[in-house]
Amino acid sequence: MLLVLSGPSGAGKGTICRMLLQEEPRLQLSVSATTRPPRAREVDGVDYFFVSRERFEQMMAQDELLEWAGVYDYYYGTPRAAVDDALSRGTDVLLEIDVQGGLQIKEKIPDAVLLFVLPPSREILAARLRGRASDAPEEIARRLQWAEREVRMLSRYDYVVQNDRLEDAVSVIRSILTAERCRPGRARWYQGW
Amino acid sequence: MLLVLSGPSGAGKGTICRMLLQEEPRLQLSVSATTRPPRAREVDGVDYFFVSRERFEQMMAQDELLEWAGVYDYYYGTPRAAVDDALSRGTDVLLEIDVQGGLQIKEKIPDAVLLFVLPPSREILAARLRGRASDAPEEIARRLQWAEREVRMLSRYDYVVQNDRLEDAVSVIRSILTAERCRPGRARWYQGW
Repeated sequence: MLLVLSGPSGAGKGTICRMLLQEEPRLQLSVSATTRPPRAREVDGVDYFFVSRERFEQMMAQDELLEWAGVYDYYYGTPRAAVDDALSRGTDVLLEIDVQGGLQIKEKIPDAVLLFVLPPSREILAARLRGRASDAPEEIARRLQWAEREVRMLSRYDYVVQNDRLEDAVSVIRSILTAERCRPGRARWYQGW
Repeated sequence: MLLVLSGPSGAGKGTICRMLLQEEPRLQLSVSATTRPPRAREVDGVDYFFVSRERFEQMMAQDELLEWAGVYDYYYGTPRAAVDDALSRGTDVLLEIDVQGGLQIKEKIPDAVLLFVLPPSREILAARLRGRASDAPEEIARRLQWAEREVRMLSRYDYVVQNDRLEDAVSVIRSILTAERCRPGRARWYQGW
């Protein structure tokens, strides 16, 4: 199963992913490709696949990416081969990407499960972003606007999970995994019944 | 949310329904209408709505039933009004009916969630049916054949739940309820976001 996790910056996606990977041994995080140079302590093949712009554009041209996007001066994308590989081994794959990317994935892999994580209200998200104190007010405003834009596309997602308390959100997502594993197309055990 | 629970005789549907209703306060069992005469201790409006054949056929003609079936000499069916009523109050409704009925429901209410409960294998179901000792061997054979026929239609259901241990099956079904409550069409909380 391919699980796509999206949600605005400040919704807690990163922490939720870490907790999910810890609690779900069958789940593995997909590593993205990027043309951005590695930061200190980032490892190629672990944090990202670091590739040249030429290589990235070749991957785009040869349909080697499940989705991609240009953010500022750099490309980011999901290499199809690693995902196919994991899925064919029976491993579930977790992707943390934005809504546009999620919808690209759903077109290529209709069986993918799209999850959107969202704080209870716009005000709570704003407070969380301000609480981080790392972003300038204009940056916070930009992030909130982006969040509103994503929320408007939410009806095309499979699930929307409220992140009020982290533990609750993770538990709801684990319920969704349990449910999705019971889909007749995935629950192979009964086919020899 | 309308939840349809199906599965072969001997799959544990009855017990699972009772446990679900106990653990899920928002869930309410739908009461079927039937032309079969009440048995001792059965209460009209609680166990069934007991109606005449004339009244039942009128309900059929006036599209007052979400689904119906003739079993031996009697009719059984799901009155639409009680279900609509509960759903409009925000109560989730549980229906325990066969696959044919479930598929009829899905046509009228596409939003309904169809669940099929099945023991891990045909052999285990056979053993459970024999263990009840209440049925004649021909009756057991008939039930197994019917189960196989239902399993072949299973791909049209939303979920298939393995009933190995009852507690596990109930817990999986509760996960499915949690997941389905996160569908963008049902999780209204984010719409004023």
